[in-house]
Amino acid sequence: MTTVGQLINGEITVEGTRQQAIYNPSTGEISKQVDLASKKTVEEAIAVAQAAFPAWRNTPAIKRARVMFKFKALLEEHAETICTLIGEEHGKISHDAAGELQRGIENVEYACGAPELLKGEHSKNVGPNIDSWSEFQPLGVVAGITPFNFPAMVPLWMYPMALVCGNCFILKPSERDPSATLFIAQLLKEAGLPDGVMSVINGDKEAVDTLLNDERIKAISFVGSTPIAEYIYATANGNGKRCQALGGAKNHAIVMPDADMDNAVNQLLGAAFGSSGERCMALSVAVAVGDVAGDALIGKMQAAMQSLNVGPHFDANNDFGPVITQAHQQKVIAYIDSAEQQGAKIVVDGRHAKVLGFENGFFVGATLIDDVSPDMVSYKEEIFGPVLQVVRVQTMQQAMDLIDAHEYGNGTCIFTRDGEAARYFSDNIQVGMVGINVPLPVPVAYHSFGGWKRSLFGDLHAYGPDAVRFYTKRKTITQRWPSAGVREGAEFSMPTMK
Amino acid sequence: MTTVGQLINGEITVEGTRQQAIYNPSTGEISKQVDLASKKTVEEAIAVAQAAFPAWRNTPAIKRARVMFKFKALLEEHAETICTLIGEEHGKISHDAAGELQRGIENVEYACGAPELLKGEHSKNVGPNIDSWSEFQPLGVVAGITPFNFPAMVPLWMYPMALVCGNCFILKPSERDPSATLFIAQLLKEAGLPDGVMSVINGDKEAVDTLLNDERIKAISFVGSTPIAEYIYATANGNGKRCQALGGAKNHAIVMPDADMDNAVNQLLGAAFGSSGERCMALSVAVAVGDVAGDALIGKMQAAMQSLNVGPHFDANNDFGPVITQAHQQKVIAYIDSAEQQGAKIVVDGRHAKVLGFENGFFVGATLIDDVSPDMVSYKEEIFGPVLQVVRVQTMQQAMDLIDAHEYGNGTCIFTRDGEAARYFSDNIQVGMVGINVPLPVPVAYHSFGGWKRSLFGDLHAYGPDAVRFYTKRKTITQRWPSAGVREGAEFSMPTMK
Amino acid sequence: MTTVGQLINGEITVEGTRQQAIYNPSTGEISKQVDLASKKTVEEAIAVAQAAFPAWRNTPAIKRARVMFKFKALLEEHAETICTLIGEEHGKISHDAAGELQRGIENVEYACGAPELLKGEHSKNVGPNIDSWSEFQPLGVVAGITPFNFPAMVPLWMYPMALVCGNCFILKPSERDPSATLFIAQLLKEAGLPDGVMSVINGDKEAVDTLLNDERIKAISFVGSTPIAEYIYATANGNGKRCQALGGAKNHAIVMPDADMDNAVNQLLGAAFGSSGERCMALSVAVAVGDVAGDALIGKMQAAMQSLNVGPHFDANNDFGPVITQAHQQKVIAYIDSAEQQGAKIVVDGRHAKVLGFENGFFVGATLIDDVSPDMVSYKEEIFGPVLQVVRVQTMQQAMDLIDAHEYGNGTCIFTRDGEAARYFSDNIQVGMVGINVPLPVPVAYHSFGGWKRSLFGDLHAYGPDAVRFYTKRKTITQRWPSAGVREGAEFSMPTMK
Amino acid sequence: MTTVGQLINGEITVEGTRQQAIYNPSTGEISKQVDLASKKTVEEAIAVAQAAFPAWRNTPAIKRARVMFKFKALLEEHAETICTLIGEEHGKISHDAAGELQRGIENVEYACGAPELLKGEHSKNVGPNIDSWSEFQPLGVVAGITPFNFPAMVPLWMYPMALVCGNCFILKPSERDPSATLFIAQLLKEAGLPDGVMSVINGDKEAVDTLLNDERIKAISFVGSTPIAEYIYATANGNGKRCQALGGAKNHAIVMPDADMDNAVNQLLGAAFGSSGERCMALSVAVAVGDVAGDALIGKMQAAMQSLNVGPHFDANNDFGPVITQAHQQKVIAYIDSAEQQGAKIVVDGRHAKVLGFENGFFVGATLIDDVSPDMVSYKEEIFGPVLQVVRVQTMQQAMDLIDAHEYGNGTCIFTRDGEAARYFSDNIQVGMVGINVPLPVPVAYHSFGGWKRSLFGDLHAYGPDAVRFYTKRKTITQRWPSAGVREGAEFSMPTMK
Repeated sequence: MTTVGQLINGEITVEGTRQQAIYNPSTGEISKQVDLASKKTVEEAIAVAQAAFPAWRNTPAIKRARVMFKFKALLEEHAETICTLIGEEHGKISHDAAGELQRGIENVEYACGAPELLKGEHSKNVGPNIDSWSEFQPLGVVAGITPFNFPAMVPLWMYPMALVCGNCFILKPSERDPSATLFIAQLLKEAGLPDGVMSVINGDKEAVDTLLNDERIKAISFVGSTPIAEYIYATANGNGKRCQALGGAKNHAIVMPDADMDNAVNQLLGAAFGSSGERCMALSVAVAVGDVAGDALIGKMQAAMQSLNVGPHFDANNDFGPVITQAHQQKVIAYIDSAEQQGAKIVVDGRHAKVLGFENGFFVGATLIDDVSPDMVSYKEEIFGPVLQVVRVQTMQQAMDLIDAHEYGNGTCIFTRDGEAARYFSDNIQVGMVGINVPLPVPVAYHSFGGWKRSLFGDLHAYGPDAVRFYTKRKTITQRWPSAGVREGAEFSMPTMK
Repeated sequence: MTTVGQLINGEITVEGTRQQAIYNPSTGEISKQVDLASKKTVEEAIAVAQAAFPAWRNTPAIKRARVMFKFKALLEEHAETICTLIGEEHGKISHDAAGELQRGIENVEYACGAPELLKGEHSKNVGPNIDSWSEFQPLGVVAGITPFNFPAMVPLWMYPMALVCGNCFILKPSERDPSATLFIAQLLKEAGLPDGVMSVINGDKEAVDTLLNDERIKAISFVGSTPIAEYIYATANGNGKRCQALGGAKNHAIVMPDADMDNAVNQLLGAAFGSSGERCMALSVAVAVGDVAGDALIGKMQAAMQSLNVGPHFDANNDFGPVITQAHQQKVIAYIDSAEQQGAKIVVDGRHAKVLGFENGFFVGATLIDDVSPDMVSYKEEIFGPVLQVVRVQTMQQAMDLIDAHEYGNGTCIFTRDGEAARYFSDNIQVGMVGINVPLPVPVAYHSFGGWKRSLFGDLHAYGPDAVRFYTKRKTITQRWPSAGVREGAEFSMPTMK
Repeated sequence: MTTVGQLINGEITVEGTRQQAIYNPSTGEISKQVDLASKKTVEEAIAVAQAAFPAWRNTPAIKRARVMFKFKALLEEHAETICTLIGEEHGKISHDAAGELQRGIENVEYACGAPELLKGEHSKNVGPNIDSWSEFQPLGVVAGITPFNFPAMVPLWMYPMALVCGNCFILKPSERDPSATLFIAQLLKEAGLPDGVMSVINGDKEAVDTLLNDERIKAISFVGSTPIAEYIYATANGNGKRCQALGGAKNHAIVMPDADMDNAVNQLLGAAFGSSGERCMALSVAVAVGDVAGDALIGKMQAAMQSLNVGPHFDANNDFGPVITQAHQQKVIAYIDSAEQQGAKIVVDGRHAKVLGFENGFFVGATLIDDVSPDMVSYKEEIFGPVLQVVRVQTMQQAMDLIDAHEYGNGTCIFTRDGEAARYFSDNIQVGMVGINVPLPVPVAYHSFGGWKRSLFGDLHAYGPDAVRFYTKRKTITQRWPSAGVREGAEFSMPTMK
Repeated sequence: MTTVGQLINGEITVEGTRQQAIYNPSTGEISKQVDLASKKTVEEAIAVAQAAFPAWRNTPAIKRARVMFKFKALLEEHAETICTLIGEEHGKISHDAAGELQRGIENVEYACGAPELLKGEHSKNVGPNIDSWSEFQPLGVVAGITPFNFPAMVPLWMYPMALVCGNCFILKPSERDPSATLFIAQLLKEAGLPDGVMSVINGDKEAVDTLLNDERIKAISFVGSTPIAEYIYATANGNGKRCQALGGAKNHAIVMPDADMDNAVNQLLGAAFGSSGERCMALSVAVAVGDVAGDALIGKMQAAMQSLNVGPHFDANNDFGPVITQAHQQKVIAYIDSAEQQGAKIVVDGRHAKVLGFENGFFVGATLIDDVSPDMVSYKEEIFGPVLQVVRVQTMQQAMDLIDAHEYGNGTCIFTRDGEAARYFSDNIQVGMVGINVPLPVPVAYHSFGGWKRSLFGDLHAYGPDAVRFYTKRKTITQRWPSAGVREGAEFSMPTMK
């Protein structure tokens, strides 16, 4: 059986002490195993990064950026391989994996602009003949800890920017689907990255805690669930590290009575069920304003969902695939059960989805639930499955109050044709990423990604402009030159007097 | 006896339950007392701010900025009063107080540029007919906790920027010298700030802990000693607040053999002894490179120090005044004692300074210590007194290694005429604020202030551009408009068909 | 009779050779005369500015900005005097003059941010140990030539930014209403501007041509009619000067069928007739889409116009005042005549406006013309009077085609509630300043003002961010320091070897 | 014989009416001929570009940037071919051609950052519920006219940025060495650029004048000699086009007495003689401050020049190759003659350079002239050959006065180790691009290129940040949404009431 190892100093190694099984969620079978790094292995990766830092830091930004130019080309060249690896371990359909990879590549593209992004501010004459300027210097060795749901994209949110800013990077990807992440990182060597500047550590809590506690690690970027994000943030901060930790979400769409309903339904299909709802930006709640809108939404959604296909990752005709594990499959189903028990109406029921030939796969069918209320468990918690819940209200303000009362504030969307409603919503809603007729308002790579409230711990958002500030520290220099007589020049005709 | 009270909702109130004495450090006598706010009083201030927030947030940035335009004029108009209040409670000489106030006003001037500083980024066509932009929205109610050594300037680092970004602000100044701070804050009302948007709470740990634990407070800015900064940062973060906490310093100047020595000595006098060394940017260590430079430095400093005057705040002929308390006076003297005991050479001894007519004032004379080594207590810790210690090394690299080995990384300076030495130093030194022939490289208000290592906890520096990012949260909006048929127009000739 | 003189080197002088009458348009009488500068006088102002330049250029930006802080306060203090002067010579009602002044002051406020606006870009390590940065240096002596219609605002678009960028400035205001302009400029001395840095030259073509041809003038900003703008631009450029020349306009509003018609009418009243239509951003054409919208617009406008008052400047109950001269009054009336002759329908006729007690004032009443077509003279040319012409079309695209076919491209507006219509319009229309339900989309001072097509000659717009680039030249510095052995230090222990 | 044709609409065509010979300067023989486009052909290219514009303008910036990502890879892949083409027609040695190409590619890299560079400024609440933002929209069809000396680099300064900003582009390269330029442009198709968006027109004055006079061309970028630059600028501006026209240079290096002389000499060798001095940034004058520095400079230069090799382009051992034409060879020699006749001292004489086997090549040897004075013809005019002239002065100020008195202000450099001299020089010298110990201070691609005085006509510099502003026009949008009742929502439960 293949063992997925560690990438340290440009080489793949297998420690061989502890392993964990990797499943193919489409079949439910174990396909590989992953090596779990010990503290010692993680420390070796840190030491190697520490050693590589001085030279990498002094490499001109444009040369660091050129590694990313080549990396982008290599990612495009190997896209099919990467998408297959994603599908085998995550279950994502190939077109969805390709979309994920593309969003990841966009972060590499942004990192190619490092020389522009790293420009400091220069002020002439802050006082008479005194100049001052700011530089944005790298932090040193920094780390990223990433979740299973985007094994290509989320790591690419982090290290391209960290690297071009002059840092060395250690990545700890999810142990459930590490292969695509590792394959991608190996391309960096071919792209020209010096060995040691970037390492990938597969592991579990031991690896994570080593990263959190080693003082040579200067910053941690994390994406995962809110309880873990909170732990990571507190521990990293307590250890004097910079940290940004992205957690859970419960993204609501408001469907206004004036919305283009066919368009809204079409958009919601992908936003709610794509990638089996295992996206932190998945739209899991639709809030219909007024009964007319509510009835239309339920009716059209129900009809549209008939043609959705769930099945194995390799069949591009499928709309979405299995969830990540059997345990998670059961958890999603339990949420649907609880909604039913608490009085909601299961309009389309995906609990008993069967995929011919893949009876052991971890499938859940697309599910639509009406008459959901804010006190239900299924509303309060993040389901992370292909479940769209509909809440009905009478006014837009009620819809907004619901959203603002939720503990998460990641993404949200409004469907309307009205400029004023859109503007009022986007201005006032307490959510970090807002869509106007855009159901998955994931910011493009040249903006930054971040939720509000308990969806993000930290000051700065992920990728985009904020990433430059996160991965650098500001140094401000103030300079005055006293006269050394050189300008007068004549003195210099007689150098013996010097 | 005058009681310094609380400024809440535009009114001064005195709770009257607990008080603390305020001393005049020049005379050693109690001059006033300060009311110490209870938790209840702090919560009232928070409630008032919370109520004022929605309207203030919606006030156009230019109108918020105009409050600062008037505030600047009022500060200039009342400068003399403010400087007197500073002198009476802090002991700072009037010209030094005027300098402090001026640096504070510069932050007000910067805040006047809010409409420019708050511009978000707009991207047309992030996809076909999809636009995206970022807004920087205020956090809500935020707080500042400030130290005794700059009762005018440090608060002005914080609230002008916080306010123009649309936040409401609660300030907890030092209880040792609160009067100038309070006087200044009262001018905001005359400047047009709505009541409740800004409150000043005088108090002690009870007030601080209320601010740290109340969930309505969204961010804390702190300046003080490193242990407290670390506590504030950990607590605020643990409570889900944004925080920047500035701590202690041990600022070194490297004196290179090619330095203009007269200029260096002249600069060091002010940087080491100004404000009795009670500045987080005070230059407290000079590192002489080579014996020739070292001997010249000691010789010229010793000579120059003869003409320094220490005495009461109101006499502008004095170069610096008393330290803040009798306890601190004793602590500074104890540091000098320890240096002597550990083998350093007291070249100029300020331990027995006597000021005629002010025998009970908390005075310490300017002190110069040679042959200091890194293992001495007086070198490791922040003295915060008028003491300049000289360390001698043989190379610039040794000097830099010393600086990098110290726990603090606030400010530093090099005296040299050589472009390459200056560039190597400013590039590599692990300190956040670097001077080249500038001994107090406090960034001007349109750059940002922040040390590295244990001198600052947090991602973002104080005031300047970083303050905009600190006092706002990023919201990214992605917008697509579906066609509603309006553009075709003809449909609208018959509105009944709509 | 009062003679309005020249402001040179901080003093008002009267050359006394040639004069021109200044009228009070409300009464039709001559009220003052203005001194017309000879070439020699203009050259003296240039020489004085040239002499003042080196010191002003080297004044730190923050100190230059502080002149503007005081200038703003003085403008606010003297607002009433300024508005009276405007009214007496221009005819503008006091509330309108106050609005003009306020927009001017906003440019002064923006100029206060000079230290931020003048920051250059700094790049560390553009190559190994090579740094590079850009500075924005002042041009030298620059000039502004401004029109009669905004004697306070348009000059304030120019010189505050030019001055804080480090330039010296010579202003040639309109000879029809120079008093407010001159009064304002005199406040600069009190605000702390050194004598000679700014001069005001009253004059005619002789003065203008001197400015255009003197090689010491490095840049010209002009606002006026398109033929003159074109001449100024060509001549200035031919003489090696930088130039931005703003010309005429024909600003259209599209009224969509879904518009809030009451709001649209209310907005159009002010935008079409305010300041007697003598604004380059006046809305002079309304394009109604569909007959229903057209009929509603005409009906509601006609009704609303009944309550408009035209009369002398000093009566705040008036909505607008006279036009600038008798000749211009006749010209406006002739345009209305021509529209009538060419087949348009005069719905409200202002040709025979009589103001009791001011029978000789240069009044034209508010005029509404329906059924205007693009081939009419009154449509093709800029009327610059209180005349709103309505064109009727059937689709939004037809409305946009009309606008794009016109030679001018200054401002435009759409009235709609539909997000998609607004976005399509603002994206595609060939006009530089676009309003969505905002009839006078004059950019705020922290954006920049500029039309497209024949409304502006030059690359850069007026005021705001573009003004920084216009009033400075870029200098890029690339720096590498060869080792001089200073860093090694040991060499310096034996200075005799130096 | 090969005929170099036109690239229009993605196809190479040969009009065949008029041709001009292309020489191989290393052999002196005719190698190819170039087709000279008629007015009709140019107009066809314009029409094609005009047609391609709407779709290209609406292509998201990131997609336009991706064409540049591929273009960069193709340029690197075909580098050898390109360098050979440059060598054959220009005479440049392969390593020099590779350097040129690399600088060109850096502009392509910068253009890849288009989505970041095109961000507009967004202001929330410029007034109550009114937002305003700026967009930078493309101009339409723009053109570039480029010189023989950098057939790869200078075109790449222009069109990558113009294209990613959304413009269509027509390039008119030098007719002396068009092949490399054409080859490069053909790669754009493979990189994914739609046909018609970019055309290359080979031709002479007829082609140039067509571009200058056709109103569909919205902007012209030009690099060449100052008289032509002035003509281009005046004509383009007169025709309502935006223009930037870069002209000639006379770049001085100041050699200070404290300079590291070996380093200075080493740098000057390449800067003066590289590419036979046919660079607008070539260092053609060295100003020695003091006789000691002057004598050392002459002595060391003379010695170092012994090892310089001049010869054919294909031999990488050569340091530089022939000049572009026989006529130019004679002109360079005539300048050396004139210097000699006017009293200068020819220290190293390159007038009689012979290259074995290439006796008909257009070679001029490296020439060093001492005792040059400002009144000599060879000093006043641009030689554009491998000639370094030395002027001797006694003070740095005299050296700076010389530079400031020259009509050109392109580049300059100072050799010194002194921070104050460097700062004074870079601050005050009237030259746009300044080197401190950097003899060819060509700004990197993420800064902008531009001289001062008669070295550049126009407001904005070439490439880098200024190019974004040059190739776009600013549109400012101000938006307010009137309430349409949609937010209240309840109204919408009964759509029949709408």
